[in-house]
Amino acid sequence: MRTQVGIIGAGPAGLLLSHQLHQMGIESVIVENRTQAEIEGTIRAGVLEQGTVDLMNRLGVGSRLMKESYFHEGFELRFKGKGHRINVHELTGGKYVTVYAQHEVIKDLVDARLRQGGAIHFNVGEVSLHDLDSELPKIRFRQDKEGELQELVCDYIAGCDGFHGPSRPAIPHSLRTEYQKIYPFGWLGILTEAPVSSPELIYSNHERGFALLSTRSSKIQRLYLQVDAKDDIANWSDDRIWSELHNRLETKEGFRLIEGPIFQKGIVSMRSFVCDPMQYGKLFLAGDAAHIVPPTGAKGLNLAASDVQYLARGLDAYYKRGQTELLERYTDVCLRRVWKAERFSMVMTTMLHRNHDHSPFERQIQLAELDYVTSSRAASVSLAENYVGLPMEYH
Amino acid sequence: MRTQVGIIGAGPAGLLLSHQLHQMGIESVIVENRTQAEIEGTIRAGVLEQGTVDLMNRLGVGSRLMKESYFHEGFELRFKGKGHRINVHELTGGKYVTVYAQHEVIKDLVDARLRQGGAIHFNVGEVSLHDLDSELPKIRFRQDKEGELQELVCDYIAGCDGFHGPSRPAIPHSLRTEYQKIYPFGWLGILTEAPVSSPELIYSNHERGFALLSTRSSKIQRLYLQVDAKDDIANWSDDRIWSELHNRLETKEGFRLIEGPIFQKGIVSMRSFVCDPMQYGKLFLAGDAAHIVPPTGAKGLNLAASDVQYLARGLDAYYKRGQTELLERYTDVCLRRVWKAERFSMVMTTMLHRNHDHSPFERQIQLAELDYVTSSRAASVSLAENYVGLPMEYH
Repeated sequence: MRTQVGIIGAGPAGLLLSHQLHQMGIESVIVENRTQAEIEGTIRAGVLEQGTVDLMNRLGVGSRLMKESYFHEGFELRFKGKGHRINVHELTGGKYVTVYAQHEVIKDLVDARLRQGGAIHFNVGEVSLHDLDSELPKIRFRQDKEGELQELVCDYIAGCDGFHGPSRPAIPHSLRTEYQKIYPFGWLGILTEAPVSSPELIYSNHERGFALLSTRSSKIQRLYLQVDAKDDIANWSDDRIWSELHNRLETKEGFRLIEGPIFQKGIVSMRSFVCDPMQYGKLFLAGDAAHIVPPTGAKGLNLAASDVQYLARGLDAYYKRGQTELLERYTDVCLRRVWKAERFSMVMTTMLHRNHDHSPFERQIQLAELDYVTSSRAASVSLAENYVGLPMEYH
Repeated sequence: MRTQVGIIGAGPAGLLLSHQLHQMGIESVIVENRTQAEIEGTIRAGVLEQGTVDLMNRLGVGSRLMKESYFHEGFELRFKGKGHRINVHELTGGKYVTVYAQHEVIKDLVDARLRQGGAIHFNVGEVSLHDLDSELPKIRFRQDKEGELQELVCDYIAGCDGFHGPSRPAIPHSLRTEYQKIYPFGWLGILTEAPVSSPELIYSNHERGFALLSTRSSKIQRLYLQVDAKDDIANWSDDRIWSELHNRLETKEGFRLIEGPIFQKGIVSMRSFVCDPMQYGKLFLAGDAAHIVPPTGAKGLNLAASDVQYLARGLDAYYKRGQTELLERYTDVCLRRVWKAERFSMVMTTMLHRNHDHSPFERQIQLAELDYVTSSRAASVSLAENYVGLPMEYH
C-alpha cells in the first residue's frame, strides 16, 4: 500500500488531519487499533475552543455541532461558598465556550470521512513504524488484529496515536526530552441521567476539594470530584458521590444540585506531559502522542486541533510548492502554543484543587488568586482568553 | 505622658500614620528605638506605587519627591537573552512607576513631622506594650536607651515596628495565625558609583539566576543578583559580582552594563509572611509588623502606606463620630489587599528566579509564563496593574 501521509490513530488529531489533507488534495490513510464502535463510545471532555469550532466548520463537518452544541457565554468559579461568573463572551470580545462531547466530534469526523471515501482501517493490530529517517517511511500493521502483516509506504507519517501509542517511542530516546508533572489528585467523573442543574459550567474550589459540574444535554449531566489519585472507585458508592457533590457545589445563596441515576463512573489521574521535539525524520507527532494536559483547562482536544493545523499547513507547502521550511519549524511553532496551554492548565489545576501538600500560606495565596481573577478585569480577561483558546501562533 | 494614638516605630508606616492623624486633628506620639541618623541611613528599595505618591502629596510632604524622583513609564523583562518592555504607563491608563529611595521618603517625613512640632522619641530602649484590651493601653520605654522608664498612655496603639518589633508578639499567641513562606534564594545587593546603564528597571530571568538592575541617580546604581540564601558575602569579590552581573544582564542585542566602584554590598534572605489578625484590643499592626513580602514586587513600603490609610480612616471615624466599625473591620479590609500583594510578590518571585528545586517541566512553564505575560495584552495589563499597585479596597 502506498499513500502520501500515513496517519496512526483515528482520534480527533488523526481525523482532523485527514480532513484537512483531503481538502488540500493530499491523500492519507488512517490506521486505528480500536474498532469504530470503540472510538465512538469513548467519552471524553467536550469543551471546544472557538478555533476548533471554526476548523470543524471550515472542513464542512460542523453542521451537527452547530445545531446540537451548547454555546456558553461564561462559566462560574465558586470559592468561600460564593459564585463568581466569568463572562467569557463579553471579556473576549464575543467568543463562546462550545460544549459538544468529544465522541460526537469523532462520530461527525468518521462519518464524513467515510462518506468521502477516505481510508480508515479500524481494529488493526501490531502497529509499528519503520524507516522514519528515509525517503519512504512505513507503517506496518495487521488488519483485524490477526490478518496478514500489511505495509503502508508513505511520504510522511503523522503520529496521532495518543499517549500510549507506538509513535512517540519511535523517536530515538536520546533525541527526545520528556517533561512531566504528576498531580497528587485524580478526578472521579460520573455521568448521570438528571435534568440540568446549571446551564453553565461550575468550577468549585471547596475546602473538601475541587468539584466540577457540566451539562451534556437536558437529560445527561457530567460531574467531577477531586479524589486521591490512588483511590479506588469501589470506595465510592452513589450515595457518597452525591453527598460529596452536594457539599462541594451547593451555596448558601441557594444553588441546589439535582440528583439522578449514575450510569457511568470512574477515576482518572492527572498529569502534564510534553515531548520535545514533536518531529523526527518523516514522523510528526500531534495531540496526546506529544503532550498531555490535566483536564481542568479542557485543552486536550483543542491542542490536537491546533497541532494538526500547523502540520497540514506544512504538508500543503511541501506538496504545492516543494517547501519544507514549515515542516522543519513544526516543533517550535507547536510547542510555543502547547507550553502556554500547559501553563494555563497547570494554573487552573493549581488554583482550583485543594492540595494537601500546600502550606496554610499557599492555601491563602490560592484564595487570593481566586479573589484577584474574579475582581480584576485584566485578570478576568486573561483567564477568559486562555479558556476560549489563545490565538494560533505562526512564528 | 498621654496621647491619643501611640505609634511604635518611625519607619514609613509610623511616620505616614502620624502625618495623616495630624491632618485629621488627632494627636500622636512616635517612639523609635533607632536614632534619627540610623533610620535615615537605612537603604531600602525605592519603587513607589501611584497611591503612595498620591498619599505623600495629600500629606504635603511630596514636593522633594516630585522634584527628585524618576518617573518610569515601564520596565523590562529579560529572558532567553532578549528584552521585553512592559509599558506600564500605557497599560494602566497613564500611571507611573516612581523611583525614590525609601530613606529619602523617611527623611522627608521626619523633617516635616519635626517642623510641625510632632513628637518623635528616637533612640528609646526597652519598648513594651501593656493593657491592650483595656480602655487605656500603654507603651513603656526608656528615653535614650538608659533613661528612666516612661509610660505613654494612649487611646490606641499602632504597631509600626517592623518584623522584629515587640508589637506583633504582644498579640496572644493563641489568637494569631502566622502564614509564612521562605524562598530558597537570597538577593545579593550592591550600590555602585557608576553612570546609568539603563534608565528603566531590568528584571532578568537568566539560566544562571535572577538579576535586577535599577538606577538611583545619574551617579549611583543599585543592582541585585540571586544567590543562595545561605551564601556569605565574603565569597563575593567585586570581580565575581561584576562578572555575574554582565553574564545575567547583557544581551546579544548589544546591551552593556557599565561598571563602577562598589561601595555597599550585602545579602538578604527572602520570605513571605502574614499575621492574621492585624488587630488585638486597642493595638493595630501596620506594615512589616504584620506582613513581609519578598522584594521582587517592591510592595513592602506600599503595603505599609495602604495599611495606615485604612487605620487613619478608622481612627478618624472614631474621633469625629464615635464610630468603631471601620476599626473593627481593619484586619479584613487590610488583608484583602495584603494577600493580593503577597500573591503578586510570590508570582513575580517565582516567575523570575531560577529555582533548582524546580523540575525541567516547571522551568519550561516558567518560560511559557514569561512568553505569555509579554505577548498577551491582558496578561501585560494584569502585570502592570499589580506593579503600579492595585486600587485600595473598601469592602
